[in-house]
Amino acid sequence: MSVTAAKGFTSSGIAAGIKDSGGADLALVVNQGPSRAAAGVFTSNRVKAAPVLWSEQVLKGGQVSAVVLNSGGANACTGPLGFQDTHATAEKAAEVLGDAHSAGEIAVASTGLIGQRLPMDKLLPGLGTAVAALSPHGGEKAAIAIKTTDTVHKTAVVESPAGWTVGGMAKGSGMLAPGLATMLVVLTTDAEATADELDAALRAATRTTLDRIDSDGCMSTNDTVLLLASGASQVRPDEAEFAEAVRAVCDDLGQQLIRDAEGASKDIRIEVVGAASEEDAVLVGRSIARNNLLKCAVHGEDPNWGRVLAAIGTTDAVFEPDQLNVAINGVQVCRGGAIGDDRDKVDMRYREVRITADLAAGPESAVIWTNDLTADYVHENSAYSS
Amino acid sequence: MSVTAAKGFTSSGIAAGIKDSGGADLALVVNQGPSRAAAGVFTSNRVKAAPVLWSEQVLKGGQVSAVVLNSGGANACTGPLGFQDTHATAEKAAEVLGDAHSAGEIAVASTGLIGQRLPMDKLLPGLGTAVAALSPHGGEKAAIAIKTTDTVHKTAVVESPAGWTVGGMAKGSGMLAPGLATMLVVLTTDAEATADELDAALRAATRTTLDRIDSDGCMSTNDTVLLLASGASQVRPDEAEFAEAVRAVCDDLGQQLIRDAEGASKDIRIEVVGAASEEDAVLVGRSIARNNLLKCAVHGEDPNWGRVLAAIGTTDAVFEPDQLNVAINGVQVCRGGAIGDDRDKVDMRYREVRITADLAAGPESAVIWTNDLTADYVHENSAYSS
Repeated sequence: MSVTAAKGFTSSGIAAGIKDSGGADLALVVNQGPSRAAAGVFTSNRVKAAPVLWSEQVLKGGQVSAVVLNSGGANACTGPLGFQDTHATAEKAAEVLGDAHSAGEIAVASTGLIGQRLPMDKLLPGLGTAVAALSPHGGEKAAIAIKTTDTVHKTAVVESPAGWTVGGMAKGSGMLAPGLATMLVVLTTDAEATADELDAALRAATRTTLDRIDSDGCMSTNDTVLLLASGASQVRPDEAEFAEAVRAVCDDLGQQLIRDAEGASKDIRIEVVGAASEEDAVLVGRSIARNNLLKCAVHGEDPNWGRVLAAIGTTDAVFEPDQLNVAINGVQVCRGGAIGDDRDKVDMRYREVRITADLAAGPESAVIWTNDLTADYVHENSAYSS
Repeated sequence: MSVTAAKGFTSSGIAAGIKDSGGADLALVVNQGPSRAAAGVFTSNRVKAAPVLWSEQVLKGGQVSAVVLNSGGANACTGPLGFQDTHATAEKAAEVLGDAHSAGEIAVASTGLIGQRLPMDKLLPGLGTAVAALSPHGGEKAAIAIKTTDTVHKTAVVESPAGWTVGGMAKGSGMLAPGLATMLVVLTTDAEATADELDAALRAATRTTLDRIDSDGCMSTNDTVLLLASGASQVRPDEAEFAEAVRAVCDDLGQQLIRDAEGASKDIRIEVVGAASEEDAVLVGRSIARNNLLKCAVHGEDPNWGRVLAAIGTTDAVFEPDQLNVAINGVQVCRGGAIGDDRDKVDMRYREVRITADLAAGPESAVIWTNDLTADYVHENSAYSS
């Protein structure tokens, strides 16, 4: 499973001492080839962590031989010295991995508290331990080592009957780029694909999956999603089938992220239909997903559809207020912008809550996932520095 | 005090039975003249409550003889029937107030749950009771009758040595237009001023006060701020002095709203300096104010400045990430986008927390106020339908 489900990859996860807790905090994923083609998508936050700035440069070459990931520190807002730490990490990894590797093909990803330097005296020696622990069965351990406030580690895999595999791991328990419980995702495949083909498949996949998860509206400085291809299956996949496999793995990991969001007791699926454009549908979906009053109401199992309309009304999407329709868990509580069916008919006892907002303005639609807002979320994000 | 501090105004606040609790829920403010000049600003939410749609029409005429305000129901998302209810309220008020009044000069404001019709069988008879209770000392009772989740009623007054007065009342305990704990503000003055002069003073005042309070990022369907002039002082004020008096009353009421925000334990003053434009400063201030992770951190008295940078980074304001500076309660915790002074020096024990974000991109600035995010906020907005 995980990043070692596809042939041609080894990985490991170890405790280097970066986390005060002594838990696993350093993961290594190595592409044994024959190909090293790779693609990546990164946070669109303009304040980018040092490892994001580094890895963006690496990915421009279209080749990645290894990925170093650490939890226990985001290495964000650490200035030129923080960037030197990332550079030193890639150099040291190349050194211990041996002759076939160079720092310029080694991506780095970090997650944890913003605004603190990493303990390089622990991280650099840890790389030697991580290389020694590399295994074609190391995927689970790598997935465990990148956890921060995650309560479970997240992996997914799709195997094609054509003989190739896409697998991956993710961490994140806030969502679409929470300031710290950052989304880090590494996907691997043994299919034969060029960097451009990987890039196209990855961008298409994340656009409708990982990019439409919005747990708390906060955008990370560290978000990183990588796709590495070893070509070890020696199979060149059908383009559409490969794109769908990458999408399915991203979707699976995204659902695991939502289900493990900090303090959440409800997963909220917001489907916007009847939109004039997909952009409008996403805009309205995000506005609903970020409405704290609605998120609290859902936590209280209160089908407070007025919050949905108030959220829609803050956008400049195409719609007429007296044409809006809202359904919660299948009950049409708002019709034509006014009172619809009896809200007491809405059953909100279960974890998944479905909100459908119909803009009655066109044929386009989009789905955004979010969570409820709970006292546990407040506690997790206020009781200790994170 | 309140709306009866200025000469020429009477008001009342009574229990009409709109609220199930039996508390005061209907307020009336009457301008006895000689002038009836008035101005108003309303929510920019495109989903507007029936009383907002009605009052916007009334204010186009530039004259308001009376304002009817009710708590216990927002009359939002109630369709044509809800608009008829507002119309009937204005007609009934004109009838019981007598010959000098017409419905077209009576503004209406409502606050409470969205998506429910008002109990007109209680509201309409209540208008007779409210007219009978009108008094030149009725300002406090009116301020009490418009409370929803407010824990205290809010009033303010400025008296000019030149012989005129500006006074007012406000309700709201979520902020800049929370879905329900809507901001309703009525200001009165006995100065002589035209509708256009009132409009200019009110827009200038709210732009830098009530419009820069952002408790939970949610925008109401019902926000209404009115300024009524009776001219009863027979004094034509100096333009600048009058503008400053209106600004001061709005600022005072705004501060009272922030201090009474739902579940809040901290008032957060966000000052953005060094901005290329005032728009940039407001944009960045709002982004910081709406960051749930930062609001939780402040609740936990954690000077987590990384959250501030992550929030700034989501905007398209003019800045360079490595030029950003952040101070919390006077300690420069971030300098040049990286680690500044020791965060342990920040004392966050007191209710007011001051965050200064320097974009190092120009001479402009703005102040936005918000609150921390607490378990009490979640409780207030999830434990019952509101």
